[in-house]
Amino acid sequence: MHAPLPPPSLPTPKAIRVNTKGAVILAEESPETRDSRGIYLPNYIEPVSHIAIDIGGSLAKVVYFTRSPSSPSVIATQGSNSFSGSSAGSPSTSASNVTIPCSSSHTRNGTLTPLALESHYNGNGHSNDYGHYPSDSLDTDLLHSTILKRTTEVRHIPGGSINFERFETSNISALVAFISELITRSAAANGVSIEEMRRSVKISATGGGAHRFGKLFEGELVVDVQREDEMECLIEGMKFMVTIPEEVYYFSDELIQEVTHHISKDVQNENVSYGPSSSGNVTPNTSAEPVLERPSPDPPRYAVTFETSEPSAHLPCLLVNIGSGVSIIKVDADGSFERVSGTSLGGGTLWGLLSLLTPARTFDEMLALSEKGDNASVDMLVGDIYGSDYSKLGLKSTMIASSFGKVFRSRGEAKAEGERGTFRAEDISRSLLYAVSNNIGQIAYMNAEKYGLDRIYFGGFFIRGHAATVATLSYAIRFWSKGTKRALFFRHEGFLGSIGAWIKNIDVEETPVLPS
Amino acid sequence: MHAPLPPPSLPTPKAIRVNTKGAVILAEESPETRDSRGIYLPNYIEPVSHIAIDIGGSLAKVVYFTRSPSSPSVIATQGSNSFSGSSAGSPSTSASNVTIPCSSSHTRNGTLTPLALESHYNGNGHSNDYGHYPSDSLDTDLLHSTILKRTTEVRHIPGGSINFERFETSNISALVAFISELITRSAAANGVSIEEMRRSVKISATGGGAHRFGKLFEGELVVDVQREDEMECLIEGMKFMVTIPEEVYYFSDELIQEVTHHISKDVQNENVSYGPSSSGNVTPNTSAEPVLERPSPDPPRYAVTFETSEPSAHLPCLLVNIGSGVSIIKVDADGSFERVSGTSLGGGTLWGLLSLLTPARTFDEMLALSEKGDNASVDMLVGDIYGSDYSKLGLKSTMIASSFGKVFRSRGEAKAEGERGTFRAEDISRSLLYAVSNNIGQIAYMNAEKYGLDRIYFGGFFIRGHAATVATLSYAIRFWSKGTKRALFFRHEGFLGSIGAWIKNIDVEETPVLPS
Repeated sequence: MHAPLPPPSLPTPKAIRVNTKGAVILAEESPETRDSRGIYLPNYIEPVSHIAIDIGGSLAKVVYFTRSPSSPSVIATQGSNSFSGSSAGSPSTSASNVTIPCSSSHTRNGTLTPLALESHYNGNGHSNDYGHYPSDSLDTDLLHSTILKRTTEVRHIPGGSINFERFETSNISALVAFISELITRSAAANGVSIEEMRRSVKISATGGGAHRFGKLFEGELVVDVQREDEMECLIEGMKFMVTIPEEVYYFSDELIQEVTHHISKDVQNENVSYGPSSSGNVTPNTSAEPVLERPSPDPPRYAVTFETSEPSAHLPCLLVNIGSGVSIIKVDADGSFERVSGTSLGGGTLWGLLSLLTPARTFDEMLALSEKGDNASVDMLVGDIYGSDYSKLGLKSTMIASSFGKVFRSRGEAKAEGERGTFRAEDISRSLLYAVSNNIGQIAYMNAEKYGLDRIYFGGFFIRGHAATVATLSYAIRFWSKGTKRALFFRHEGFLGSIGAWIKNIDVEETPVLPS
Repeated sequence: MHAPLPPPSLPTPKAIRVNTKGAVILAEESPETRDSRGIYLPNYIEPVSHIAIDIGGSLAKVVYFTRSPSSPSVIATQGSNSFSGSSAGSPSTSASNVTIPCSSSHTRNGTLTPLALESHYNGNGHSNDYGHYPSDSLDTDLLHSTILKRTTEVRHIPGGSINFERFETSNISALVAFISELITRSAAANGVSIEEMRRSVKISATGGGAHRFGKLFEGELVVDVQREDEMECLIEGMKFMVTIPEEVYYFSDELIQEVTHHISKDVQNENVSYGPSSSGNVTPNTSAEPVLERPSPDPPRYAVTFETSEPSAHLPCLLVNIGSGVSIIKVDADGSFERVSGTSLGGGTLWGLLSLLTPARTFDEMLALSEKGDNASVDMLVGDIYGSDYSKLGLKSTMIASSFGKVFRSRGEAKAEGERGTFRAEDISRSLLYAVSNNIGQIAYMNAEKYGLDRIYFGGFFIRGHAATVATLSYAIRFWSKGTKRALFFRHEGFLGSIGAWIKNIDVEETPVLPS
């Protein structure tokens, strides 16, 4: 005699806040902006008026949405070769700060389309930008299959793009000017006054600087600022990004090998000579071509593997966000999370030390240097100490025993002779990139092991999709976990927090979907 | 109906290879050699002819035993103030390379007493050194209570001293010359030919360089070289050193606080100005007095707590050996061990980077610089990013969010203005010391947690008994373990491997003890 079973409980259905069906990643404008490609959402038709900003210790990352069409020719995943780094015979695509002309510069032309201004869309004819769009280019099937809210008469644009921009936190005025211009442009495109536009726009601010700079935004931009918790935004951003096709990728074991081998071979074949500069400082090789292509999720070289699991398969996981510092966050299957660890040895450490030790002025210049470097000239390898492998401990002769371990000795000898030792900026850059990446990979692995997590996602601007960085982090995870755990990466690695701040505020503006 | 129980099995009794009863640590000769004080063993009377060498990536550590008396006045643990760093009003004891005159320079005068030469002790009257010793100074009780082997007629010296020396691995010829001179001196003292002495002497070599340099020693010194496994020697050395009274110490939580507070206060009170040098490089303050005393296990300041547990209580534990690189070894209760982890970010990294970034030429100069530094001028603190604590995550505003995180920003600004940013060598030194120490502490903690070990021993030349280093490592362990685990240190931190190589070869020469 049993009491009747209660009906099975079902999880509460979650509203899809942003429809990412059919989303495509747009081609980058230049190698430098390859991590900030727009994401075109053909099925998302809601107006979005807020701008999300994630203000970290070094960089402020901006995400905003514009109603704008996108030509299929600029879709990155179709194998365009306009961004794949130093392809043979293509000197214009080297890894330096070359801006490649691009047919689409949508991020500068797109405008905000605030919900509050929707009435302006009803044929008032002010727009000469993407704010309105000729009806003959509409995907009418899409349009009619979508629940049109508020007014079915409005000529909705078929989707739009999420745009990504970044600024140095130390140059916050450039960010303010950018948003100010975006508001001005949007006001003109929507045919409203700047004051009206400002009232319709909101800023969602997250990251460490949200509090510090919030007042500044409110004062200078005359817009509302909503502050969002940093860790929440990172997790929301991650959960959103895994729904974007071909956003999440990893390096296969073969690719890790290939990248490592490619580096070694090119370094060994290096015949360029480097003389000490008159000041005795490290001397970069400014004339040589980069030997290692930029990381690329696209053919033909360094083809990464895209993660194709369902979004729900991504949890539980560990999220390692590498900005100036490093946060390590455990995310449970139900999406709840906890910051369980971190390290102060992050991007800020690499950038700071390399800005002292090399002539590089930007992080991309530092990465370009590292691609030409041979860490064995500054790192003490197992073989340098033992003369061979330390087989008993499973330590290969090529393993790094002590990062920068050769410098002290060499410097000591040089100083004893009354001169300063000289080391190549390239070698120093590679050594330090390895040191920081390896260390983060090791600490991440230990946390993943502690919490029984097999998927380790790496985000943050440190990564820059840089092949050596990705390969090093991937190798560290494979090495320590004996192949049981995997490092996963995002194309928009630096924007998890800002996209999270953006997505968190979609709900607020969205009209509740009526039950069907 | 049970079969009779077998008799309880007892562990096989282990012979005491070296009697450490009554051992005392001798006073140092200078602050620079404070980690290499001799250890006087009043109860060890066996002749020992072998020299142990641990050749690491940067340093070669030497241990040998001499029959020599020691005046109680040079015993370190009686509170002598001749080595405690910059005591008030004592400018001659600053942390630089000042050699303090010392009443005992026994390490240079002591000689080896090979077993094979024991017959020479029988009154042939050749010795004019400590090889023989007047019988009226003998502790006759001790003498008679000890099993005298081989010949009871020999006038045994009451104990002797373990001596410690170190050399730069890059200057191996200095080490060869030192041993050569020791052999020559010992031959004279024992009244034998150098050839006979060489036949009686053996070198036990361990560390990464044992293989590389073994042939060199055999060739140049004409002595036998026995190679010993590095990890085995570290563990043997640790197990031996815990038997020495007042060798193992730790910082109490109060002391950790005090050291940190002392540093902060002194840095805040600093009024010395630092101008950029003409080359734009970092400028050390060469005139100022060190603000932080050298670590000292002795009163009056920075009194550490000595570990007084029985030797058996030290196991199981984690041993973290910080040389050029870092090895992390799990030691079980039965003494079996496994190298479970490590990191390439070790002493070599700190020394190498600081030799590039500061004018310091020796590690002790680097440590002296760091004592004057304020890491907050180069490190990005939580407060720099958030403007306050990030209370939700329990991150205090003074916590380091990004090591060197302020440099890139400042350098970027300086470069934009056409000049190089300037950072103080002291601040750079402190920041990097913190970064490396914190990181090692974190990785050590995670391994201790993984294997359920509460005692974490730190060895290796990196530590140098430096208060900031010891406090940082101790704090990291206390912080991460929430006070459940403890960091322990050795006075002879850099000599674990060499003392292990020495002790491993005691058995070979020792005549088996007869059952009583």
